[in-house]
Amino acid sequence: MKTVIESVPNFSEGQRGEVISAIVNRVKEVPGAKVLDISSDPDHNRSVLTMVGDQDSLKGAILGLFEKAVELIDLTKHQGEHPRMGAVDVVPFVPIKGITMDDCISLSKEVGEEIAEKFNIPVYFYEESATREERRNLAHIRKGQFEGFFEKIKLPEWQPDCGPAKVHPTAGAVAVGAREFLIAYNVNLGTDNLEVASNIAKAVRHISGGFRYVKALGMTMEERKLVQVSMNLVNYKKTPVYRVFELIRAEARRYGVPIVGSEIVGLVPNDALLGAAEYYLQIENFSPSQVIENRLAEE
Amino acid sequence: MKTVIESVPNFSEGQRGEVISAIVNRVKEVPGAKVLDISSDPDHNRSVLTMVGDQDSLKGAILGLFEKAVELIDLTKHQGEHPRMGAVDVVPFVPIKGITMDDCISLSKEVGEEIAEKFNIPVYFYEESATREERRNLAHIRKGQFEGFFEKIKLPEWQPDCGPAKVHPTAGAVAVGAREFLIAYNVNLGTDNLEVASNIAKAVRHISGGFRYVKALGMTMEERKLVQVSMNLVNYKKTPVYRVFELIRAEARRYGVPIVGSEIVGLVPNDALLGAAEYYLQIENFSPSQVIENRLAEE
Repeated sequence: MKTVIESVPNFSEGQRGEVISAIVNRVKEVPGAKVLDISSDPDHNRSVLTMVGDQDSLKGAILGLFEKAVELIDLTKHQGEHPRMGAVDVVPFVPIKGITMDDCISLSKEVGEEIAEKFNIPVYFYEESATREERRNLAHIRKGQFEGFFEKIKLPEWQPDCGPAKVHPTAGAVAVGAREFLIAYNVNLGTDNLEVASNIAKAVRHISGGFRYVKALGMTMEERKLVQVSMNLVNYKKTPVYRVFELIRAEARRYGVPIVGSEIVGLVPNDALLGAAEYYLQIENFSPSQVIENRLAEE
Repeated sequence: MKTVIESVPNFSEGQRGEVISAIVNRVKEVPGAKVLDISSDPDHNRSVLTMVGDQDSLKGAILGLFEKAVELIDLTKHQGEHPRMGAVDVVPFVPIKGITMDDCISLSKEVGEEIAEKFNIPVYFYEESATREERRNLAHIRKGQFEGFFEKIKLPEWQPDCGPAKVHPTAGAVAVGAREFLIAYNVNLGTDNLEVASNIAKAVRHISGGFRYVKALGMTMEERKLVQVSMNLVNYKKTPVYRVFELIRAEARRYGVPIVGSEIVGLVPNDALLGAAEYYLQIENFSPSQVIENRLAEE
């Protein structure tokens, strides 16, 4: 594959297996779009589909996903722990290989417009595709959820970016946008004291003064009697994994707490890990084309 | 490419550009064999060709290389700093992807037998392909060089593994074998004291009590007024890069000398660097299939 884009649509069904299969099978019919992972959470009543492809195949796959989801999901009957505003709730596009962020922004707008037109669903562009600063943040757009959106959409500042200024009666609204690859990364601490993890989470996360591209929470790992700093690294190019890890190590030191391990949940881009090797081994003048697999891919 | 084998033949010409081109062009004619690098050293009077391919294409490329090298190189007229015993001096095969060491051993024997038969050159199997322990080490086989081999080959213990028990009058003899990927890795120290680098080299290298798969020398970096531990890591799977780096750091500490950087010369397998990231970030239960590029390659 020359051009590789990742798309990770979230849709509001995590319980009815036959609905999930019907939606996923519709996506799999699209040639060129490859489904890498399907993860359904019954409590959240939500599924996350990870797929890759080029512009055309992903566009086809997302439109197919909407076709089935709009047909089979009725948000007036949907309950789940995870906040949602749409049958298909959010559609991100992530540049992986041979493609720029700008290309992904264009793709998100094209796809958003087709969704609006074909399915009569209001579309909000978020993250890198946001048309104004206050629409960058997905949580902010989604506030009020499906039920609240019938009023929210009437506010002048919440006119959709495209599609009708009217919530779809069963499929709600959707956020579509381009963003950087998100790494789910957790660091496990050698203590069962949740306060330590929470304090360290505050030190590293953007919202409370930490790194710009880190979201973090302290969590308890019941079975291991440990706590962890659970994170989303939303731009590993600008806030690299090793830097976050080293800050956590430095903060943990004041509590006399060691790092006992870390975990990557799901997928990670190769260069996020190469960046860590380069830092720790202090490699000078390193070029990605020195990696034999990269050279093979180039030829 | 499904199966990827690397081959790094060394041939005894590093000065005459037209001879080097003729040999390299002959190799490039073979479909499927891809030349990644050509490195010629006039002082050594030797060239190193790095190429990749599958069994068939590399076999064709190596036989083509011999055809031209035997035609154009006359060792009776060859002088250079680097020890050599053949026009083509050594032919290693390295498993990279989708292939085992055993497969590379078989390939080396097949290719060795064809070389012996077609070109009437005595062949010694070395490293993983060695037929006895004392033929594992290339330097040991090559001792005496081309000039000395006319007598050496008469000794019962130096009968070749295949081909005539008689040195080729102009093309000498050759070592062929399978081995692990070799990483050329140097660690730069914040001092101009060569003794420090030499002592640390002794601590890490196999021959003087260090790691089994490390060869090391202390060297001076004139222009930077630093010294370095210059290494060949001959099996990074069993003696990983980060472990060597950390031992050098520990040894340097006794001299109060910092590591100022390191360098990878030439190519490195991706997993050698991922291994370092995994160690330093203390990643638990890491699986290579979490790396998105690996997942794409699998699909």
